[in-house]
Amino acid sequence: MSLVRRAVAGDGCGRVVVVTSGGTTVPLEKNTVRFIDNFSSGLRGAAATEYFLESGCSVVLFSRDSAIHPFVRHLHTGPLNCSLLDRIEAHGTPDADKQTVCLRPASDSFHRALDLYKRTRDRFVQINFQSVTEYLFGLQMLSEVCEPLGAGAAFFLAAAVSDYFIPPQQMSEHKIDSRSGEGLDLHLSQVPKLLGMIRDKAPKAFIVGFKLETDLSLLKPKACRSLAKYNLDMVIGNELHTRRDKVVFFLPQEREITITRTGEVELERSIVERFNELHAAKIETEAQ
Amino acid sequence: MSLVRRAVAGDGCGRVVVVTSGGTTVPLEKNTVRFIDNFSSGLRGAAATEYFLESGCSVVLFSRDSAIHPFVRHLHTGPLNCSLLDRIEAHGTPDADKQTVCLRPASDSFHRALDLYKRTRDRFVQINFQSVTEYLFGLQMLSEVCEPLGAGAAFFLAAAVSDYFIPPQQMSEHKIDSRSGEGLDLHLSQVPKLLGMIRDKAPKAFIVGFKLETDLSLLKPKACRSLAKYNLDMVIGNELHTRRDKVVFFLPQEREITITRTGEVELERSIVERFNELHAAKIETEAQ
Repeated sequence: MSLVRRAVAGDGCGRVVVVTSGGTTVPLEKNTVRFIDNFSSGLRGAAATEYFLESGCSVVLFSRDSAIHPFVRHLHTGPLNCSLLDRIEAHGTPDADKQTVCLRPASDSFHRALDLYKRTRDRFVQINFQSVTEYLFGLQMLSEVCEPLGAGAAFFLAAAVSDYFIPPQQMSEHKIDSRSGEGLDLHLSQVPKLLGMIRDKAPKAFIVGFKLETDLSLLKPKACRSLAKYNLDMVIGNELHTRRDKVVFFLPQEREITITRTGEVELERSIVERFNELHAAKIETEAQ
Repeated sequence: MSLVRRAVAGDGCGRVVVVTSGGTTVPLEKNTVRFIDNFSSGLRGAAATEYFLESGCSVVLFSRDSAIHPFVRHLHTGPLNCSLLDRIEAHGTPDADKQTVCLRPASDSFHRALDLYKRTRDRFVQINFQSVTEYLFGLQMLSEVCEPLGAGAAFFLAAAVSDYFIPPQQMSEHKIDSRSGEGLDLHLSQVPKLLGMIRDKAPKAFIVGFKLETDLSLLKPKACRSLAKYNLDMVIGNELHTRRDKVVFFLPQEREITITRTGEVELERSIVERFNELHAAKIETEAQ
């Protein structure tokens, strides 16, 4: 956690945002061959990290190891496959000291991202998780580290956390055998709800959860229930198929703010701008 | 499949190897948020692809979209995160026509891989899958395309294919609700065994399956049962924790060949060498 303290110390504007990103895995065996995963590319967390850094905050990115990474995402769109190699030229002989490889053309967005990264890397720390257990323990520790910051700390909880898992004592030691010819029955238990624990450990922090649904009619009631139950500052609701174009901020007292994508600007830029305004308002209220 | 035909046509040595790589997903909902995944980085398939190309074969790589990619894997080890950016310098202004980014130092292995890629890309095709259903359909099509090649076609089936899935008619339409407070019961059905279908569609091909176990005592009996049941030419057995250092080739008539890693040479180089010898022997036998 010393890296986190470094990022916190390097902060200019007094605000530290913990961004969680990507899906958690649920191992089905102790010697893990099979696991349940949650769909999440990590794009929202990666993009938001860049905009938070640009706005002057420190960012602790707690992300799935395989999630899309901030900055690097501009180097190459799509899977990192051989189409990247068609754009690469090698310079220098294999034995030369100063061999380099050059990528062309590099996009404008990558040049801007590289510049942003080099300007802000002292305020940026990344920590990885894979399983839901690692996520639960890691986020509790981050909450404790952020507690002294009071309302200066914010949580942007964009990770897709599994609702169910197999407790270690019920887990098969080895790869589940498929010989029997019959199907497989799995019983999963509910994952302890983490949002309440974060609120307990960092009572003054600005805590923002996310709710993803595929059935739009469930989004508002579920977001509002989560908001009240865990005493959150906000829940950002998104529907699976429109999540790149529109989100709704659900706030206490039934306030709602709808944020839609305009033109070529990423939705995350607008999300972070409004998030920062609401976070600043909370800091001001707490200071009074 | 025209791409596959191109690779087949570009072949110099008369041998085409279909390499499958990475794990398959099993969606739990039609609007997929959750899925079961199989642990497989795809490293074995990616490395083998390079050695097959180097040995003169054509390769059709049928791999999970997120699996490790041949060639590209030498650009950067570990997750593609910001540590890559610390090695990148930008040249040219953001508005210049000829902007490039340079990566230094580039490793010797990346220079060699880039050279191999540029020499062999006419013999190399990559097709991606994600779900076990896509894998099953795709591999059946590849078997049909390869049938006219007779014993010249080989299958190196390194993908980690799920044994269980939820048939579409039993799948929930929307994200499974986690409100109830109780656990989740899942019933999975067995995936139709594909190996027999490949043998039916490409009766003369050299077909090699893989068996991964975490319990070593199960490896040999399960590999031998698979060999006989699906009329395979070979099953390559590996144990989860030692799979980078040792594999065992299980062949008909209880022949076994153990291949171990020596020094810095990747195990896949030796696997491909012995695989090619056995494949060549089959071509010779069929020609008589």
